[in-house]
Amino acid sequence: MSTQSRLAQQIRFIVEIDKLKEVFRQSLLTQSRRQENDAEHSWHLCLMVLVLAEHSNFPEIDVLRVLKMLLIHDIVEIDAGDTFAYDTARMADQHEREARAADRIFGLLPADQATEFRELWDEFESRRTPEAKFAAAVDRFHPMLQNCLTEGAAWRQHGITSDRVIARTSHIADGATEVWVYAAQMIADAVKAGHLAE
Amino acid sequence: MSTQSRLAQQIRFIVEIDKLKEVFRQSLLTQSRRQENDAEHSWHLCLMVLVLAEHSNFPEIDVLRVLKMLLIHDIVEIDAGDTFAYDTARMADQHEREARAADRIFGLLPADQATEFRELWDEFESRRTPEAKFAAAVDRFHPMLQNCLTEGAAWRQHGITSDRVIARTSHIADGATEVWVYAAQMIADAVKAGHLAE
Repeated sequence: MSTQSRLAQQIRFIVEIDKLKEVFRQSLLTQSRRQENDAEHSWHLCLMVLVLAEHSNFPEIDVLRVLKMLLIHDIVEIDAGDTFAYDTARMADQHEREARAADRIFGLLPADQATEFRELWDEFESRRTPEAKFAAAVDRFHPMLQNCLTEGAAWRQHGITSDRVIARTSHIADGATEVWVYAAQMIADAVKAGHLAE
Repeated sequence: MSTQSRLAQQIRFIVEIDKLKEVFRQSLLTQSRRQENDAEHSWHLCLMVLVLAEHSNFPEIDVLRVLKMLLIHDIVEIDAGDTFAYDTARMADQHEREARAADRIFGLLPADQATEFRELWDEFESRRTPEAKFAAAVDRFHPMLQNCLTEGAAWRQHGITSDRVIARTSHIADGATEVWVYAAQMIADAVKAGHLAE
């Protein structure tokens, strides 16, 4: 394959993922209070990694691999849609829907890159490596943070209670214990302020 | 400084940069045709780096440093606003406005990280290192691509002609010659289709 036709194939993927900017999440932005989309969420996670990597439980973490995982982790939602973290009904077949999406969307890339991206996505989903555990910690911390900064808007809208938030976000400790200590205090403060039901 | 107070300072920065999701650019999204914001633009650039790094003019490029530069390169626009690439009047004092913003916003971080981020931003702005040249190439290619995919919407709205687009985007060749070959063909096609005035 010539360089220019390989490039053309790569650009078809780059064009396709523009759609991630139109997949909206339950979390709200702090300023306009509109719903956040997956692309800007992914950008914010990457910044959190750059700033918070020193708090990872794993001293020799490969920051580039963490960033790669987070840059691509939500691309499957172009086809599968966003699944709210507390929607147990839709979470039942979430992985199956997303795996089909991974096949189609990463499959737009040249085969070597399709394989690399699929392996990164599988690694993130499995949460077994240090990099995946830290990436998952940041991915769970971020919506909790956005919720705390918007007076618990998404929690209140969906009637989420603090035990469920704690059950979900305590996994932050698997990747970054110190960040979990901080997050737990934020949750306690949100309950005290009446932004999160006990 | 205790780990928890360092963390608190880092999170103040993470909260501040949520505002980048509300800084809108001239480029439109391919689906809804709304204006793109800086956060999702930055995410898209990072994906382009992962996919296109092999086309860099510099074989041993440090991809992590390119990603870091692109993740933070537009944060200054929280204070300075987006400057349209063809708005010569506003471009005159652009760097000064943005440097003041860099002082304030990166200055929210602990000193060691404030210095690191400022150095990355200066490196990007100077476009002298291989990493900065490749980052700049991707940053120039992306809005051109979005314009081509939206029938030249932003070009037509502002009366931009092909010579100005070529003058600006031909710098892609400083970072990735093969990408410039591809981009030049897209520009020629846009002129032929009537999406970009000659």
